[in-house]
Amino acid sequence: VSSGAVPLIERKKNGGELAPDEIRALLAGYLDKSIPDYQVAAWLMAVCWRGMTEGETLAMTQAMVDTGATLEWADLDRPTVDKHSTGGVGDKTSLVLVPLMAEAGAAFVKMSGRGLGHTGGTLDKLESIAGFRTELGLEEMGAQVRRIGCALVGQSPALVPADGALYSLRDVTATVDSVPLIASSIMSKKLAGGAGTIVLDVKWGSGAFMTTPEAARELAGALVRIGDGAGRRTRAVLSSMREPLGRAVGNALEVREALDTLNGSGPADLWALTLELGTHLMLLSGLASSADDAVRTLTALRDSGAAARRMEMLVEAQGGDPRVVARPDLLPAAPVVRTVAADADGWVAEAEARGIAEAALQLGAGRLRKGDPVDPAVGVVVLARVGDRLAPGAPLAEVHARTEAAAEAAEARLRAAFRLSPEAVAAPGEPYETVG
Amino acid sequence: VSSGAVPLIERKKNGGELAPDEIRALLAGYLDKSIPDYQVAAWLMAVCWRGMTEGETLAMTQAMVDTGATLEWADLDRPTVDKHSTGGVGDKTSLVLVPLMAEAGAAFVKMSGRGLGHTGGTLDKLESIAGFRTELGLEEMGAQVRRIGCALVGQSPALVPADGALYSLRDVTATVDSVPLIASSIMSKKLAGGAGTIVLDVKWGSGAFMTTPEAARELAGALVRIGDGAGRRTRAVLSSMREPLGRAVGNALEVREALDTLNGSGPADLWALTLELGTHLMLLSGLASSADDAVRTLTALRDSGAAARRMEMLVEAQGGDPRVVARPDLLPAAPVVRTVAADADGWVAEAEARGIAEAALQLGAGRLRKGDPVDPAVGVVVLARVGDRLAPGAPLAEVHARTEAAAEAAEARLRAAFRLSPEAVAAPGEPYETVG
Repeated sequence: VSSGAVPLIERKKNGGELAPDEIRALLAGYLDKSIPDYQVAAWLMAVCWRGMTEGETLAMTQAMVDTGATLEWADLDRPTVDKHSTGGVGDKTSLVLVPLMAEAGAAFVKMSGRGLGHTGGTLDKLESIAGFRTELGLEEMGAQVRRIGCALVGQSPALVPADGALYSLRDVTATVDSVPLIASSIMSKKLAGGAGTIVLDVKWGSGAFMTTPEAARELAGALVRIGDGAGRRTRAVLSSMREPLGRAVGNALEVREALDTLNGSGPADLWALTLELGTHLMLLSGLASSADDAVRTLTALRDSGAAARRMEMLVEAQGGDPRVVARPDLLPAAPVVRTVAADADGWVAEAEARGIAEAALQLGAGRLRKGDPVDPAVGVVVLARVGDRLAPGAPLAEVHARTEAAAEAAEARLRAAFRLSPEAVAAPGEPYETVG
Repeated sequence: VSSGAVPLIERKKNGGELAPDEIRALLAGYLDKSIPDYQVAAWLMAVCWRGMTEGETLAMTQAMVDTGATLEWADLDRPTVDKHSTGGVGDKTSLVLVPLMAEAGAAFVKMSGRGLGHTGGTLDKLESIAGFRTELGLEEMGAQVRRIGCALVGQSPALVPADGALYSLRDVTATVDSVPLIASSIMSKKLAGGAGTIVLDVKWGSGAFMTTPEAARELAGALVRIGDGAGRRTRAVLSSMREPLGRAVGNALEVREALDTLNGSGPADLWALTLELGTHLMLLSGLASSADDAVRTLTALRDSGAAARRMEMLVEAQGGDPRVVARPDLLPAAPVVRTVAADADGWVAEAEARGIAEAALQLGAGRLRKGDPVDPAVGVVVLARVGDRLAPGAPLAEVHARTEAAAEAAEARLRAAFRLSPEAVAAPGEPYETVG
């Protein structure tokens, strides 16, 4: 059997195309171990080299989906929507968007992962709510969605088991950064989730996986082509991840900011991105007839408190204390809070997402290795945004730390992430770009 | 340990260069299994993609050499020479060149391999001499060279053990055809063999591994740079392998042709290539002062019968019947010999090496899988060479077969390998091109 893989590796290596059945055979052979991992590794590197055609990428995605269970929502009377972010710093959008869209009439199961390295994970954030359970069985999850329209859960291991297996090989063979492999990994989980409408938040910048808009655009195109090819209404939104999204970086701090946003306050950029993603979900799923209509509806659902009430239902359904939604001060808090002040005046030219994330990681908000625990209370609140004019001594950020020593170390890292300019710097405010 | 390989794979994947120590660590880790084969496979594919610098290729070759024993000839009073052919159809040059060069004053240990697929192997050819032993221990081999100046033996497993291990992985991961990997594999064995002078016969054409002169030139350059870099006098000769070398394709048939050549007859192209390779060995090792001098010396050693007598010593030393040298009719002969006649007249435009080799393979002269037995007696003798003018019914080739049915099947394959042209075709006769 293993010699059967050689011509397929060879063809990809020479820039040729594999048929859907051949891709399926490679994946099946990898999973049942009839094709040894060294052949799969060679093929993965050849894919990094030569890429995959649109047809191969779609076939790969569907083959991955077919390795596990898929969710079926045909009996629902509401449109199913889903969202994925390619990962950034301070990205707590799902915590706002999921209850908001459920309140707007959608069914929204958001499956998320844990943080690793400089990017946080939605599951870690949610678990800073005492008692909150993110591991629901498929049945319990389905029942919850049918009752309250939404769920915020961990990626089910029953869906796309090939993805974890393949990723663990890519991780140790330097074959992670291939657009078709990334796209098929992301989209296989979206397709298996069964939503009819999928919106992808593809981030670029120092705090994102893709550092340039060009790379983000390429990935966005691949994601949308897969979704369209699989018959889902799919759109991608490109958003900048040069400075963190919102102000909070760290688990409980981010939950608090998301709840503030549901409660009608919270930072403008977080609400703007939530509205942007929500508008596309509304339009594509038929819940709104125009972008204006969508924005009006979503804003009203926030302003009326209906979205916050929906979040209470979700927290309660998943074992958490629903009072936290109205009283974010119930969330765990760090014993040491220290303000980092600017030592000169000027305009904020840079508030570098990656550096800020690494300060939060060092404080204990993230993990360097899978399985490590995270500290829910610690993190960073960014107080100076690009374009702000600061007087000397004005606050750059707040450090929330477990100890004074940890706060001190984080302060040094944070200072290095900020750059002040003696000349005026405009706030970024690029319009969102959409693909699909 | 295995995570240590990821940055090295990543760097090569991104087109970067590995330091000699890093290449050595990869190879050592592969051999002691501290680096898993899937990481080595990914790195090999990245090498196919990005190539290797001259420094990397030399480091790789030396790292391979250092995994095993090396032969030492410092005590010899004669220059040590070696030769390698990249493999072709009907290539029995070593059987002529080794005793000839030993008679000219060189020490020549030629280590060879077995045939696989369409290319024959020198060991299979030699073993058609009854009793001939190709597997000598290093000690016995050394003693023989000190006594009679030459040996024709199998590649010693004590030399470059990494080569076999790495090749078996390349073979199943479609990473065979990378110039630096091919070059380091070839040259590691030459360096470990300890010869001060190395001449490489790099063949191109349908019957060769490299099909174009450009590809052969690239490989030749890589081989010579390694040899020079390792302090050996190294030169490569490019020779065409569009039609077979000489007339005979098949084990005993080829030995017979080689012995005929030593005895002063034999096909002109085989003697010409032997002289070409021999001349470079003579010049580089200081055994001749000019090409004319080398040709004169080598021709005289053939004409006097001295080279044939040296071959008798070699055959006797390695367990064969030395009378075979003067009486090639003692070699095994096939029961069925059939002439394949041209069915039209015209000039021979093509006598395609690959097709002729496949006819011989089908007759049983070669093997499709490692370990399969070969039939020493069967094969093909090509009677029509490119440029020959044929009348209808003139012989194209002779089939030497075990059965009538096998002969018939081979006849059809052979016909397909020949192409006649109604217009005159010149005999090829390209001058040899040398590199280094």
